[in-house]
This record gives sequence, C-alpha cells and structure tokens, in this order.
Amino acid sequence: MSNTFALKGLFIDTPVPGELRCREGFLVCENGTVEGFYDALPERYAAVPVRDCAGKLIIPGMSDLHLHAPQYSYCGTAMDLELLEWLDNYTYPEEARYADIAHAKAYYEVFTRDLLHSATTRAAIFATIHTDATLELMRQLEKAGLGAYVGKLNMDRNCPDFYSEHTPERGEAETRRWLDQCREAGFERVFPILTPRFTPSVTDAYMEKIGGLSREYGAAMQSHLSENLSEIEWVKALCPDAETYADTYARYGLFGGECKTIMAHCIYCPEAEDRMMKEGHVFIAHCPTSNENVIAGVAPAARYLRQGYETGLGSDVAGGHTLDLFAVMAAAVQVSKLRWRYVDQSEKPLTMAEALYMATAGGGRFFGKVGLFEEGYCFDAVVIDDSAHHNLRAFTPAERIERCAYLGGARVTDKYVDGHKIL
Amino acid sequence: MSNTFALKGLFIDTPVPGELRCREGFLVCENGTVEGFYDALPERYAAVPVRDCAGKLIIPGMSDLHLHAPQYSYCGTAMDLELLEWLDNYTYPEEARYADIAHAKAYYEVFTRDLLHSATTRAAIFATIHTDATLELMRQLEKAGLGAYVGKLNMDRNCPDFYSEHTPERGEAETRRWLDQCREAGFERVFPILTPRFTPSVTDAYMEKIGGLSREYGAAMQSHLSENLSEIEWVKALCPDAETYADTYARYGLFGGECKTIMAHCIYCPEAEDRMMKEGHVFIAHCPTSNENVIAGVAPAARYLRQGYETGLGSDVAGGHTLDLFAVMAAAVQVSKLRWRYVDQSEKPLTMAEALYMATAGGGRFFGKVGLFEEGYCFDAVVIDDSAHHNLRAFTPAERIERCAYLGGARVTDKYVDGHKIL
Repeated sequence: MSNTFALKGLFIDTPVPGELRCREGFLVCENGTVEGFYDALPERYAAVPVRDCAGKLIIPGMSDLHLHAPQYSYCGTAMDLELLEWLDNYTYPEEARYADIAHAKAYYEVFTRDLLHSATTRAAIFATIHTDATLELMRQLEKAGLGAYVGKLNMDRNCPDFYSEHTPERGEAETRRWLDQCREAGFERVFPILTPRFTPSVTDAYMEKIGGLSREYGAAMQSHLSENLSEIEWVKALCPDAETYADTYARYGLFGGECKTIMAHCIYCPEAEDRMMKEGHVFIAHCPTSNENVIAGVAPAARYLRQGYETGLGSDVAGGHTLDLFAVMAAAVQVSKLRWRYVDQSEKPLTMAEALYMATAGGGRFFGKVGLFEEGYCFDAVVIDDSAHHNLRAFTPAERIERCAYLGGARVTDKYVDGHKIL
Repeated sequence: MSNTFALKGLFIDTPVPGELRCREGFLVCENGTVEGFYDALPERYAAVPVRDCAGKLIIPGMSDLHLHAPQYSYCGTAMDLELLEWLDNYTYPEEARYADIAHAKAYYEVFTRDLLHSATTRAAIFATIHTDATLELMRQLEKAGLGAYVGKLNMDRNCPDFYSEHTPERGEAETRRWLDQCREAGFERVFPILTPRFTPSVTDAYMEKIGGLSREYGAAMQSHLSENLSEIEWVKALCPDAETYADTYARYGLFGGECKTIMAHCIYCPEAEDRMMKEGHVFIAHCPTSNENVIAGVAPAARYLRQGYETGLGSDVAGGHTLDLFAVMAAAVQVSKLRWRYVDQSEKPLTMAEALYMATAGGGRFFGKVGLFEEGYCFDAVVIDDSAHHNLRAFTPAERIERCAYLGGARVTDKYVDGHKIL
C-alpha cells in the first residue's frame, strides 16, 4: 500500500461537457492512477495517508493545448502592435536568443516555475528551432514533474535569416538529432512533438520530411490552422495544389489518424477541414485570450465542443496574455458571447461548466486518461485555495469555480501529476 | 509648508489621449493640489518631506464612472444566466437586502475596503433605493478618503414589489430626505447623484420629479443608455412620445448641460443621441468587461474618444466582473479589437495609452481637475508595485503599464486623494 494515498475534500470535475460534478469525499490514488472516489474511506484504506483539503477546491489538473514557451518573457506586452510588427520586433528576435543555451536555461526556468504554480499539469508547447534549448526546456519540465509534449520548431521559409533552418535537409537532420536525443533522455512524462510552425513557415519539401519523421518515430504533431483570413489566402498562394489549408499538412500524413495532432485556433475552417478534423480526431486548441488580442476573430468553439470534436483550451502565450487557464476559461465564455452577438446566433454561448470541461477533460484526452476523477485516470489533481475571494455569501462550488475564472487570484496550494506531489 | 510634500519616482500620465507621458522626478503637492513636476527638487522645497517610490510606477488615481456597489457581493458569478434570470435571481433579491442597515454596513465595508486597495480614487456609484443604506455607503467612502458620487436609486415600475418605491410621490419624498441628509452630513469628497435606474424602471411622472430635484439641489445624474436593442425597443414602447431613449431623460432636464450627467454603455446610440451627448458634455461610461459578459455588444468607445466626447471607463460591477480598472483597460483594448473585426473596420482599435487616458484623465474630468499630474490638478496619485511580474527583460514604462493591465496582480502600495495619503 506504499503507493496508495487519498485526498479528502470537495472534488469538482466534468464527466459530461456542460455539467459540473461536485462531490465531497475521498479520492484514492494507487500507483499514480485514480483507484476510486468514496463518500467515506473504505475500511481497507484505513491505514493510508489522507491529506485533508478542507475549505479548498480540488479539480483535475488542467491541460494547456497550445503555448509558445519562449514568448513567455514578453507576455502581456506589445498587444497594440500589428501582427507583422509583433513578429518582427518581438517574436523572432526573442526566439532567436534561445540559440544561447544560458539564455534558454534562465528564461525557461522562469517559465517552468510559473507553469508549475498555475493550475496546468499538462501542456503542448512550442519551443524554438534550437535542439539544445528545446531539450533544456524538456529537462526542466520533466524535473518539475509536469507532463508535456514539447516541439522543436520547424521553419525554412518566410522567416528572418537569423532565425531559420534554411533548408529542408538541415532542418530534417537537426530534427532527427533532437528526436534521437529525446529517446536517449528517456523522459517519463515529457515527449517530443513535431512542430512545423505553420504552413507559411515550412516548404512542402520540408513538410514531407516532417511527415516521414512522424511515421518513423511515431511522433505526434502540432501546428496552427485557419486563424485568420489573410493567412488562409497566403497558404492558398503558397500551396496552390492543396485543397485546403488542412490539406497542406494532411497530404504528408500530418493531420490526425495515426499522427496524433493538435491544431491551434481553427477560426475559419471550411466544412472540408471540419470533416477532416472530426474523422482524424484532431484536437482543436481553442485560444480565446488570443482571439481577444490578435484581432483574428473568435473560433466556433461552442459548436466544436457540442458536435463532439476533440476540443481543449490553449493559453497561446504570448498571443494570449496569460498562462492561467482559469483566465482562459473566462475568456472562452466571454468571446463566445461576442461571437453569438456578432457572428452566429444559432449557437448559444459557452457556459463556465463547458469551459472547465475543455480545460480539463477535453484537453486532457490528448495526454491519455487525463482530466477526470474516475477510476483508471491519471491522478492529476490541483488543490485551490480561493479564500482570497471575499466570501460574504455562501457560494456554491460552481460559483467558486466561476469566481476563480473571473476574479483571478486563486492560489494553487498542492498539485499532483500521476500521483506525484509536485507542488 | 506643512501641507507640502513631494513624491519621487517614475510618473506616468496622459495629457493627450493616446500618448503616455513618462517622467522621472519629483511631484510636489501643496494644499492638496499638484504644485508642479520637477526633474530635480527646487531649492525652496529642500525641507519638505519626500517619499521615494523607487522601482515603482506612479499614475494618477483612476476614476470609475459606473458601478453598482450592492452587486459587489456576487461579482464574478452567474455570468451564464440570461439578463432577466440574473436580475430576478441575483440583482433584485440582493439589492433588496440593503433595507437592513446591518447588512448594508457589513457588505459595504467589504466593498469599500476592496475599492480602497484598487487603483481607483474616484467613482460614480449606484447604491440601492434605500436612503439609510446609501448614506451608510457614503459615510464609509468619505471615511476611507475616496472621492465619489453615490446615488440612491429611483425605481417605481417594472421592478418586484419587494424592491420598489411604488409611486413617484413616495420616491420623491424619500429622495428629498436623502438629499437633505447628504447636505447635513457635510461630506467633503462624497456627493449625491440622482440615479433613475434606467427609463424602464422609472415612470415619466417620477422622471419629471427627479428633474425638478436636480434643478432644486443642483444635483448631477447618472443612468444607463442604449445598452441593448431589446432595451431600446422597450423604452420606445414605454415612452412612445419620446424622440429617442436619451430624450426620455433630456425632456426632464436630466441629460447634460446644467445637469452634470453620466450615461453608462451607449452601445447603440443613434446619431441624434450622439449629438445630444456631445452638446451636453454628457460623460460616457464605457464598460468593456460588461460588454464581454452581458452579450449586449461592444460600445464604439474608440470613436467617442477620438471625436472628443467625454469618455471614461466603468467597471460596471457586477455586470462587469471586477473592480480593477487595470483589467477594465485591457478589456477595453480587447473588445475594441473584436468590434473592429466584426462591426466597424473604419475605426482602429483602442490602444493601451488610450485606455489609460480613459481610466484617468478622461473619467477624471467628471470629478473636476482630476486625472493628470499637472499644476492645479487634485493630487490624486497611486503608487504601484509591479515587481510580481517577473522582469527577465527590462520593460519600458509603457510595457509595465500594459503588463499591469493584462497580467493583473500589481499591488497598490500608496494612494493619495487631494494630497491625503489614504493607503
């Protein structure tokens, strides 16, 4: 029984999208997974350690399906700039600095520390084109006990000379070196994910090689899809023979099915792309804070979720201004209301319970059995102290979750990943 | 020189909308007003106390042009409800509880405490229909040293029987009693403001009496205007002889000019209302967090500001989910981007500098010479510790303001109103 323990308290999760399940009792962890939930602790567990989380909220660890770790350093700045200005003045120069491993180490330490203290336990992360810096980030995340898919970027066109892999051959060789080193490192909870930045940054020749690497290494992939209208036009011009933007990935085996895939944004997907995503079980990373900041528009996330697409949330740091998925949940509800008002009144706005589903069970599915307090699921749990929110009223558990999302300032006091206490 | 002192540090304000002025030096306060700004402290002030705010940001105190104090208790909850459900289940029952003075005292203490710790120094506040509770709130704000206009609500129709003034006569008598007691109280920095909730809640007969009270007492007024399309239709049905929604106030002398006026929202104003607001110097309380939550739409705040309307920000607690005007500034930029995307591409989104202008100089004008660090202005200053935002980079003052808005968590360490240190 040495790998067995229990948490006691108020557990909130979302086995069904749109419905909060709130239970007071005991959640038993056995060998890293949820053994069961009990109103009263069964006699057979009388001797196991019990951590009492009285007065707090316990939710499944959140999964962040899209974020750019090297951009964290300027998170929440330069939001008034146009996209190209932003890329040229902030993104590319900052990402290029990760060629310097000392820089990468120092900056990723701050990122990893802040991610550790957030409600996020699993994340799909864009790094930079640099193998060594990417491995450094993976080591730090592994050491912190967080679960992650991390991608060394692939880029060989439409990027500045000082920040490019230049040719498909050089890019492939470096990506192979990175994948090999990941294997050697033997990480337990951190995995490589192929990361062509987006079609405009990757030649067809390189995309083809990335597809080959995916099959050879059985690697997942992540990228961006149909975020804004001019990007879609650009992709059409760059790949005139592709049927859709999605097809520029799919024709190289990089769009779901065997290749586990996350696509960020998906704001303007035509029906053909929707179909491909549904059939290929492509995960949609809905990034509502980014939708607020980048002027691209608002993704039809409520429809995706309700029609059974694989849908999770992404902070999209630093197009999104915060790592805090609670804030991203509030933004998801808010932008869906504005979408309802201005774009499509046939789809009711997202509710907070749906937002919590996306942040936990929805996104968690990318990482395996993650995001629910059910037997056999990874024991990923986050204990939240929301006492900073003055409590003149007796708030219901649902209202407390809502206040964590809207007010901010809730503190994560304990955090478990696969049953390990990492905070 | 006993009423003279200086702050030393980095001062940021916005004498011109859209431009941040950042100055390192000394701001001298004499008898509650700004005497001047100096790069180096003049010899004649060598003996005055100097407070060094090294490493911090100093901005003018912010002015919140619209908020409902009794709704603070459920701030950040019930955001998934439809408006009518929200009013019936939260707003009216909660506001009705302020008939109990003990309840009002306890709840307003929490509100006043939190307002004191925010960046807000001046506010225009809706209370409830209760004279005694409203006076209690005014006493608390005065004692805290905050500047405010506070309104006992006027409501005699379309409200539940348990929360109504029932007849124009009873309403007028109670409002007169309140105005008289305000005079007797002799508040220094807190003033009454007539507050017909909005036209649907106030009969024409009562509105006429409120107009009379405004002239008799020289009192300002605040209300709501053209927030959503069904509200506008409702007003048309209730007041078929009024030319516009604005006219339902204006025909009783309650729309700018002699009667200093704030109108909250102004999302769907027809040209005629715009003209009336411009001519009457009506203050527009733009409430972007409310725009995000209430599904009404997004006000054309960028146009109002750039065309020279009197424009400030309102937190609109609890339609807005936070008292923090920094968060409201970020929301102002964000919703203006979505408005640009979906409604009107002729008006560029608001910038953060414009948002700071609205939160300080723009809204401050309602309270007098408030919101700038210029000679003769009220010495309202807020000292901000933003060290919680990791500073891997050397951020510019503009970037630091932006991070306060987007990231939250900046701490107000010192606060001055009319030269009094209230925090």
